[in-house]
This record gives sequence, structure tokens and C-alpha cells, in this order.
Amino acid sequence: MNESYCAAFRELLTYDDVLILVHRSPDGDCLGSAFALKRVFENMGRRACVAATGTVDRNLRHITDGAEELKPRFLPSVIVSVDVATKQMLGPDLAAYADSVDFSIDHHYTNTEYARENIVVGAASSAGEVLYDLLVACNVEIDDVIAEKLYAAIAFDTGCFRYSNTTAHTHAVTADLLRRSFDAPAVVRKMFDIVPLSQLRMERVAMDALRIYDNGAVVLLPITRAFLESQGATDEDVSNMVSLIRRIEGAAVCATLKETKEGDVKVSLRSADDVFDVSAVAAVFGGGGHVKASGCLIKDTMENAVERLRLAIEDRLPSERRG
Amino acid sequence: MNESYCAAFRELLTYDDVLILVHRSPDGDCLGSAFALKRVFENMGRRACVAATGTVDRNLRHITDGAEELKPRFLPSVIVSVDVATKQMLGPDLAAYADSVDFSIDHHYTNTEYARENIVVGAASSAGEVLYDLLVACNVEIDDVIAEKLYAAIAFDTGCFRYSNTTAHTHAVTADLLRRSFDAPAVVRKMFDIVPLSQLRMERVAMDALRIYDNGAVVLLPITRAFLESQGATDEDVSNMVSLIRRIEGAAVCATLKETKEGDVKVSLRSADDVFDVSAVAAVFGGGGHVKASGCLIKDTMENAVERLRLAIEDRLPSERRG
Repeated sequence: MNESYCAAFRELLTYDDVLILVHRSPDGDCLGSAFALKRVFENMGRRACVAATGTVDRNLRHITDGAEELKPRFLPSVIVSVDVATKQMLGPDLAAYADSVDFSIDHHYTNTEYARENIVVGAASSAGEVLYDLLVACNVEIDDVIAEKLYAAIAFDTGCFRYSNTTAHTHAVTADLLRRSFDAPAVVRKMFDIVPLSQLRMERVAMDALRIYDNGAVVLLPITRAFLESQGATDEDVSNMVSLIRRIEGAAVCATLKETKEGDVKVSLRSADDVFDVSAVAAVFGGGGHVKASGCLIKDTMENAVERLRLAIEDRLPSERRG
Repeated sequence: MNESYCAAFRELLTYDDVLILVHRSPDGDCLGSAFALKRVFENMGRRACVAATGTVDRNLRHITDGAEELKPRFLPSVIVSVDVATKQMLGPDLAAYADSVDFSIDHHYTNTEYARENIVVGAASSAGEVLYDLLVACNVEIDDVIAEKLYAAIAFDTGCFRYSNTTAHTHAVTADLLRRSFDAPAVVRKMFDIVPLSQLRMERVAMDALRIYDNGAVVLLPITRAFLESQGATDEDVSNMVSLIRRIEGAAVCATLKETKEGDVKVSLRSADDVFDVSAVAAVFGGGGHVKASGCLIKDTMENAVERLRLAIEDRLPSERRG
């Protein structure tokens, strides 16, 4: 951890009444890091609270100790954002704070450095890993609670240590966290494994709508509002469907196309390897992301969106994979 | 690693023409450890081969460099078993070697110490972790290939670092392995993620047969031969179905009941936590295993087996969970 980051973090640790901001639709890394940092201040006898736009996913509420909504609770003397790459990611409820962020702790290369002090480590697996390194560098005690939250953060962003962002250092950090006492398998199980039976059944029915092209190299799954309503399913229930279809043997590129309430089509793209860059496909429709995981919004009917997406993918598919 | 184990391992390293035995239906830990050990001998210019009963699962053939069957290839001067707790686990093709095993490297507390030298570390996550500690203690170089095989072994037996056998030491070992050069995400993806589309569809159709009792606390899934045949599915295709149903929210105990070719019922039991001990249920039918994962064979019709299993589970279910 470089010295200027440590100096900034040591300054942050001098404050009381700390407002911690997370991005909209906060994920496990964002929440785990934010609640770990909250605990750091509380262990020093300070006040800290976490604020977010919108509700917390069911599978992440163990991190927030059950809270479904996260609101500012006092007039802050300092504002720190965690895992938030841009002001826009704060979402509408927190937009009022966007120009007053004092510190940003993040691991996104794309961080726009909108805070007064920006602690951004692009090589880290997660904001949790950045925060761990800061705590160790500044000799802040990591108790069982902080360890559990940081473990949740790191496990979430690495897909439980399976994504390519998982480094030797990530495992070394996790080894140290596990020397504290908390139920790591329960954390992972709550975040990744447990699903309502209705969701498993819904996934099974959704699979009937799979569109398979190019001898299985391209797999698209349209999810219409009519389907969601027939299953009594919410947008949250189908948010992870792309992870299911990316498991299909031989699929080089896959995507879910979800009809939004507004009648547009929200696309989540995944690539099986580093060879096919799905962010280039997302960019065609004004979206973006990473080589292996990207997203975009197509303002069109579902059938048109499926066809336009298929063509955009096939344009970039190596000729030997095209069917 | 204790000194007597190191002394035994150093003795093993003096041999040439090494036969490495793995258990029947070898898993990722068994194969990863065996092929890592094979490479250790090859790096010293020795001959070594891995032998097993039966065929290797598709999702593990990246460990065997594509080999589907593992046969002894020469008259061995020394025999070492890896991840094999008992002679019986060698299976029929290797039974002839059962009384001639010189070394056993294992992590099962239940190892019956059938070899001349038994290196058994019950606290280790995996045979891979035991072998890693031996290699480090004996100053044997771990090259990229050995690292990849050991990583596969450890990742397999820990469910990609999510089961309770994953310790701080397991992560520290993995951190060191990742300092070598190999594609860890690809290893995990091949072992855990990739499934044929037919299997994904079959899994979803199988869900229609779910039996749910006690307000969802008990979930049983019967899998008949007729179902397998209707889906064109093999026993291997359904071997992991229990992992799917154990994800169901609220399920304290779950099991798959698979009709065997002989017309008996093979049961795989899982518990959601350490509170309900499924090995006690398996023991009712002459089976066994661990608190959270056990198995048994019920020699009865499917319908009778479902009913007898349900009663055996409910007998042990806390009264507040019973429906």
C-alpha cells in the first residue's frame, strides 16, 4: 500500500460522524467493505453510518445485519465512498452528496477521482482487499466482525475465489482473515447458494426459451415481462440467470435479454474466455463493461433486440465458430 | 508437517518405477494429488504412472491430460496410494495391489493405515494440501504443472474454498500455488461450471419430481431409471443433483434417491448446517459419511425408499421444524 494512500486513510481515521456511501444496487463487495469500515469507526467509539440508494438484495442482508434500506442518520463531518467508481453510481437518493465526497476507497481502474482524496488500487480483487491492506498498513485491529465483512466483500467480488481477479495476494489476505473467528462457509452460502424454491422452478421454465445459434457457440435467453408475471418472479429473481446459462458446454458468448418495465431490453453479456470481448458488443448499443462481463440497454422490441444482438455477436465471432 | 511423515516421504522420493493408486470413481482431489506426485517423480527423471478402477469423469480429464482410463504401465518397485482411506476404496481392478501398498498419503481421519508407511493428516482440507506440505517440508520444487494439479485438488475438495474444511492454512497454501503460472479460473470452470446443455435441461425437468415435507425443511428428489432413460441421461449426469437441491431456501435436510441399474435406491444426503447430522440417517440404512454429507443404499422400491427415508429424517428433525 503506497504511503500517500496510507496518509489519506490515517486522516480519514481522525474523523467522527462518518457517512459511508455505497453505489446503487450495492453488491457484496461494496456492502462488506462499507460495514467493515463502519465497524472500524465504532471500535474507536465514533459514529458512522452507511447510506445507499434503493433496497439491499435478500442474499446480502446478512452483511447489513438485516437492514433492507440504508439511510444517512446524522449530519456528517466527513463523507467517504466505498467501491464507487463515479458520482453517477451513487444513484438519485445520494446525488446531493456527489460533490462533497472527501475520500473514495475503490478498486476500479475507471474511478474518476471525484473525491478530495482518492485511494484507488486497480490491481486489487475488491474494495475489501484495498481496505484490508489499508487497515494492516495503518495498524488498525481487525476484529472478528471486520474480518467477516471483509471476507464477504472479497468472496463476493471474486465469485468465491474463482474469477481471474483472484491473486496470490487475495488468498494471502483471506488466510489472515480466517485466523479470526467467524462462519465463512455460512457467509458464502448466504451470498451464493441459497435460492427460493420458486426461483429454481422459474429458472427451469425459463430454460425453455433458450435461443441457440452457431452450433451452440452463442446462447441467448430472452426474459419477457409476461414470463416474469406468469412466474410471479421479480427482476431480482432473474438477475443471476446469465450465470446459469454461461455454464453451458461449448457456449463462447451468452446473454440474457430482460424486458424492462419501460418496455426496453436490458442485456447482460458473458464471455467464456478472454478471447471474445463482450464489452465490444455492449458498446454497439451504448453500453460497456469488462472483456468477460458487460451490459447494455437496447431500446427496441424483444424480438428485434434478440436479432440485433445476435448479429452484433456474430460479426465478432471467429469464422470457425460461426454456424 | 511432522518429522516421521517427512522421513517417510523422503524415503518414497528415493524410488523409481512408482505406481500411484487412486480410489474408485476418483475425484478432483484424488486425481490432482496423484498427477502432481507423478510429475514430482518425472521431474527427477523417474518413471511413474497413475492407476484407477473405472473411467475418469469428463469434468476431471483436464487433470489427467485427457486420459479417460488409468492403467498400471510397468512392474512397480514401489506402490503409493493417494486419498485412499481403505483398501476397499481401490475398487476391483486394483484389488490385487491392496496388500502391497508401501505408502499412503491421505487426509481422511478414517484411514485404516493399511500401508507400510501411512502419512495421514486428518486436519488437512485435501490430499492436495497434505502433498503440498510434504513437498515444501522436503524442499521439492513445485513447478507450474505441480501447482496446477495441487490447486485442482484443493479447489475440488473445498468446493472452491467454500466448505468448512477450508482453513487459513488452505488459503495460505493456495496463495503460494498461485505464485506459479497457470490458469486457475480455467481449472475451476472445467471442474465445477461447465455442463452440457442436456444436463442443464435435465436438471430443470427433474425438479418437477421434488417431494417437499415439513414446510420445506425436508426436500427429497427421486430419480428413477425411467426418468434417466426419458432424458437420455447417465448416472454421471445426475451425480451432482443433490448440490442443486441443497440450495433451496429453508431446506434443513435434502437428499437425492437414485434408482440403480440393479433396482436398488442410492441415497445422497446433505444437511444445511452442522446441527442436523445426516450421517445418523445414513447409518439407519447401513451407510455413513460426514455430518453434512452422507450416503447409503436402500434395497427397496423407490416409493418405499422415499417413505422410509422421510421417516428416518423426521425422527431426527427438531420438533419445531416438523410440519
